[in-house]
Amino acid sequence: MNYIDGGVCAAKGFTAAGVHAGVKAGSAPEKNDLMLLYSETPCTTCGMFTKNAVKAAPVLLTRELLKDGRAQAVVANSGNANACCDESMENARRMGEAAAAALGIAAKDVAVASTGVIGQRINVEAIEGALPRLASLLSADGSGAAAQAIMTTDTVKKEQAVTLTVDGKTVHIGGISKGSGMIHPNMGTMLCFLTTDCAISRGMAEAALRRAVNASFNRISVDGDTSTNDTCILLANGMAGNAEITGEGEDYGRFVEALTALCVDLARRMARDGEGAQHLITCTVSGAADEAAAETLAKSVIASSLTKAAIFGCDANWGRVLCAMGYSGVPFDPDTVDVVFASAAGEIAVCKGGRGLDFDEEKAKTVLSEEEVVIRIALRTGTASCTCWGCDLTYDYVRINGDYRT
Amino acid sequence: MNYIDGGVCAAKGFTAAGVHAGVKAGSAPEKNDLMLLYSETPCTTCGMFTKNAVKAAPVLLTRELLKDGRAQAVVANSGNANACCDESMENARRMGEAAAAALGIAAKDVAVASTGVIGQRINVEAIEGALPRLASLLSADGSGAAAQAIMTTDTVKKEQAVTLTVDGKTVHIGGISKGSGMIHPNMGTMLCFLTTDCAISRGMAEAALRRAVNASFNRISVDGDTSTNDTCILLANGMAGNAEITGEGEDYGRFVEALTALCVDLARRMARDGEGAQHLITCTVSGAADEAAAETLAKSVIASSLTKAAIFGCDANWGRVLCAMGYSGVPFDPDTVDVVFASAAGEIAVCKGGRGLDFDEEKAKTVLSEEEVVIRIALRTGTASCTCWGCDLTYDYVRINGDYRT
Repeated sequence: MNYIDGGVCAAKGFTAAGVHAGVKAGSAPEKNDLMLLYSETPCTTCGMFTKNAVKAAPVLLTRELLKDGRAQAVVANSGNANACCDESMENARRMGEAAAAALGIAAKDVAVASTGVIGQRINVEAIEGALPRLASLLSADGSGAAAQAIMTTDTVKKEQAVTLTVDGKTVHIGGISKGSGMIHPNMGTMLCFLTTDCAISRGMAEAALRRAVNASFNRISVDGDTSTNDTCILLANGMAGNAEITGEGEDYGRFVEALTALCVDLARRMARDGEGAQHLITCTVSGAADEAAAETLAKSVIASSLTKAAIFGCDANWGRVLCAMGYSGVPFDPDTVDVVFASAAGEIAVCKGGRGLDFDEEKAKTVLSEEEVVIRIALRTGTASCTCWGCDLTYDYVRINGDYRT
Repeated sequence: MNYIDGGVCAAKGFTAAGVHAGVKAGSAPEKNDLMLLYSETPCTTCGMFTKNAVKAAPVLLTRELLKDGRAQAVVANSGNANACCDESMENARRMGEAAAAALGIAAKDVAVASTGVIGQRINVEAIEGALPRLASLLSADGSGAAAQAIMTTDTVKKEQAVTLTVDGKTVHIGGISKGSGMIHPNMGTMLCFLTTDCAISRGMAEAALRRAVNASFNRISVDGDTSTNDTCILLANGMAGNAEITGEGEDYGRFVEALTALCVDLARRMARDGEGAQHLITCTVSGAADEAAAETLAKSVIASSLTKAAIFGCDANWGRVLCAMGYSGVPFDPDTVDVVFASAAGEIAVCKGGRGLDFDEEKAKTVLSEEEVVIRIALRTGTASCTCWGCDLTYDYVRINGDYRT
């Protein structure tokens, strides 16, 4: 498996484009806010969606549309969540129909997604007006423009692609995603569109997607909030020409591994670009009784406001790490916990057997001043481990969210 | 029931004092950091403690000591949590023994509590050195000095007292508490000492305390973190001369009601004084199927970082309120939710039946600019309701917690 360029258009037969449609009144004309993703041929398609009880109309619509396991395009906007308005469902449909008309395909083959403010009417007319132009811009170089179109408070585009061999054929998997605030397992305010030219059955695609999402997007947290619009869609058009993956085995194993690596890469970018973040925080818990316990403990640490604020301050306040583990709900013996802070600048052991170690505060500051900080926690209960990702809590998080809507 | 002055010394026979012992090196000499609370006679005593798996030594010690249902004094410090050090338990014992010696009572009758940084050795020598002087300062006017001694990042002292009639006798209940950050149900980084001259059996005192704590301290959140040191102790010395409350009934009902009101008053002060807070946020959910559902929904709203940041920005972003309800885990129909923001400056309906209402943004800003903001949520599922309290998320929260330890 190798990382390659091309993002969501790296796989054969996929094109994408992004434009500024003016979804949000007064938005900057250089910021794309509408994207289209298209496959030459219909795709085996599956998706995972928010578990929030309040679901935006595009989530309800797309979940329904994907029941037949098939799609050929995705249309998505930023600037408005298209949620909690009387016309939300009608407008989600209009958005899909306009895309279908521009592409000359059936509306039932167009997945729809939105992200942005909840409870304000979406400017669907602007979207309808922009779609013919958007469709005409579709190209194999369009990944970046599409990735930019789904950004909200994101400061960088997220795109990535990998190549691997399946059944002797070269297969590509690519993706774009967005997500910066309201990020939390299970998925946050995130959209992710994944494409592959691998031939794979619906059932195996779904299994692979579930496994990849659980090991990536469901292991990041920015602020403990989960949203109404979370959507992750995988489109597989089979154009690589491999014998279709229809069951477990070596080919499926390689496909899952590559898809998971791709999703972890995108998830880490999302955590790194968490609203206001200055640090990516990676927390690994090892020596746990099972993976679920390790995951719950690691998630509790990366989601702790106090730990996040301490990392912002480059403060090796490991007591907050222990404390966050303690209220996670996972039983463990505090007297068998070791904690190490590590980064590109070195590492520093701060707690052994639940007791504080004397350590050099200056060195600790240096270690914690790096962009990526690793919190390594070792228990002595078992052999399972898990890694989760988050970011620090900064003044800018408060600034961004104190006045986002208006 | 009436509110009265006197705080934790309002009830007959209780005295208190606070001094600066120098628990934390370099701390300001005008800030008390050690307190003593004393009853003329031994008290029926019960406590509630943190559910964090990592428990500080004073919590473990006091929980053990209170098994006999009896205490006569409480010694407590700020500046150090006395947790996660090899000598933590020994030092907690030394602290209790020093207080007992200064008071001429048995060490088993002295409850011990600490609050502050985790994992650093407590300066127990400073505490031992200060205790004789502290004991000599005990007075019925000492509530304020004691309340100040347990403050950490708190900006104001928290004390309150009430009077009521039980069995024809005038009964008093008073209390002091601290808590500003790391506040979350179940209890946060909080200490609360409650005193009463009411005669009440251990069993009924415990039942009353549990009910009062569940309706107050367990319904506030500052930052979603719960700590290693949370302690709430009720001491009842019976000096009011009423016939002991030994079962349910009118007297018990009045006692519980007064104790609950007192705890809610203290809890609101803690939420209002949440680290960096500019607003107290009160969230009431009504029309729920049962009280537990209403409580979970209200807690999810007050704990949402995004809702908290929106209130900081005086932004009527009700979509975040619905979103937080949606991920609470309580099933409800989004289409039957009404949301109103209210304050001393008026009220403004923002959502009806899950749909956004047109509202005057300027008026909304005015309503949300008041110090206490109420989020009123109505469902149409049942008749149960619950109120929880929190505070906004501000720059100062980040500043305070970015560099708390060093």
